[in-house]
Amino acid sequence: MKNLGFYNGKIDELENMQVPMLDRACYFGDGVYDASYANNHTIFALQDHLNRFYNSAKLLNINIPYEKEELQYLLIELVNKVDSPTQFVYWQVSRGTGIRNHIYPEGMKGNLWVMITPKPLADPNKEMSVVTMEDTRFFYNNIKTINLIPAVMYSTDAHSQGFDECILHRGPDRVTECAHSNVSILKDGCFITAPCDEYILPGIARKHLLEACTALNIPYEEKVYSLQELFDADEIIVSSSTHICRRVKMVDGKPFVGKDSSTFKKLQDYVFTEFYDYTNAKRID
Amino acid sequence: MKNLGFYNGKIDELENMQVPMLDRACYFGDGVYDASYANNHTIFALQDHLNRFYNSAKLLNINIPYEKEELQYLLIELVNKVDSPTQFVYWQVSRGTGIRNHIYPEGMKGNLWVMITPKPLADPNKEMSVVTMEDTRFFYNNIKTINLIPAVMYSTDAHSQGFDECILHRGPDRVTECAHSNVSILKDGCFITAPCDEYILPGIARKHLLEACTALNIPYEEKVYSLQELFDADEIIVSSSTHICRRVKMVDGKPFVGKDSSTFKKLQDYVFTEFYDYTNAKRID
Repeated sequence: MKNLGFYNGKIDELENMQVPMLDRACYFGDGVYDASYANNHTIFALQDHLNRFYNSAKLLNINIPYEKEELQYLLIELVNKVDSPTQFVYWQVSRGTGIRNHIYPEGMKGNLWVMITPKPLADPNKEMSVVTMEDTRFFYNNIKTINLIPAVMYSTDAHSQGFDECILHRGPDRVTECAHSNVSILKDGCFITAPCDEYILPGIARKHLLEACTALNIPYEEKVYSLQELFDADEIIVSSSTHICRRVKMVDGKPFVGKDSSTFKKLQDYVFTEFYDYTNAKRID
Repeated sequence: MKNLGFYNGKIDELENMQVPMLDRACYFGDGVYDASYANNHTIFALQDHLNRFYNSAKLLNINIPYEKEELQYLLIELVNKVDSPTQFVYWQVSRGTGIRNHIYPEGMKGNLWVMITPKPLADPNKEMSVVTMEDTRFFYNNIKTINLIPAVMYSTDAHSQGFDECILHRGPDRVTECAHSNVSILKDGCFITAPCDEYILPGIARKHLLEACTALNIPYEEKVYSLQELFDADEIIVSSSTHICRRVKMVDGKPFVGKDSSTFKKLQDYVFTEFYDYTNAKRID
């Protein structure tokens, strides 16, 4: 298949897929999702993504209609139905189906959605141009919900101004994350990234970067850092499941000249090597 | 029909309606809505709701695929297909249909959804029990989006604790609105309600209450008021398109004894009389 949609067991190409109008995703955005990148028909870090997915659902009291292991095997099966070896693999659970009512019955049965689309590997050497904007999203950024209007608006706004991503901050003292990535900095050889609280999504690529720091003996800190610290950083690193680890070269339209390419390269090589090792092995976690 | 779903021209009972999986409402909650109450197959204050709907869409750069007057006549037509004379009339526009991508193309064609369900008139004399909670929603409450997870969580939480509604506040100094209503107070004969900024939805029932104040020579102020002012109020009034105007009798589990039933009754009688006059006349705005 060229791409794939799945809804509670029904499978077809995405353009042909229909879902019930009464699914609560349709009128409340009442669901959570996760997504990863597949190379060589192998979903990278699937276990990490499944753990986060079940945690997001639990935080909103949404019932996923599959056990974690079943869902793992289902996703592996679906990825193999799609022709392209490199894919964006997206899945979501909505709270359930029913006439619109804010109050949901306890124990409502969730609906499982999967969307798989071909996606070529991004060039890791392509450096990014970013813009900073005030973060005015709601306060549950640790939960990967499909209430994504702010992310849509930030992304489109940044894109229309010619930027690749948008770095969000709550006032000048707290850089949070990007519209659909995490952001970290290098300063004096130390990797600094925002702590995992309700202001950021606990990114899987971010987690793997921290693991890379440990493996490479690079000191790291998970702490609040300011816009000024971002501007004064030696390197700015954007990480996400699709981009994995990218370097920033422009901020707010001005060139940003990285001063620690050596540490950046070590980290980037480590996480990309991990990605290729994992996805060539086709192993199941 | 017992109820009705409409999607871009397709009509059926809601339980039979299917929509494309690739509608951006399904995975981004990328849409806005409005809703009113119909009595005697007549949608109350339809023009007010349509004005707000087109404004919400404009604020998010979403294209509604109908002119305002066409949509007005369409909704009137659909309401007459449903058996019950009293109905909850809900409509939304999503940004469009496409493979998941935060960045949307300029000029994307919106999709129109309508859901109409029978709903008996609520008893205006039933007083409400409310609970106060910190408002942690995102900052675009003036736009009636379908990113409604916080409203779902607040409503269900309040309901499971035995409360009818939840009054939200940002810190102790600013009461904003309820999970799906506005809230106003009476103090020393004056009607006080939060100003229309990004922290509240400009409620249509709230607007009609302000018009009632003018007609009845009741002084009013649109200003920020605190939790303490709420607790010290003479009356607390919850307003929405379905409840129109309701009195509060319990706050946070403690009895709230209203001290100005005379002013409350005048306001309530005025807006209910307006509602019945309007919906019996079956007039088109």
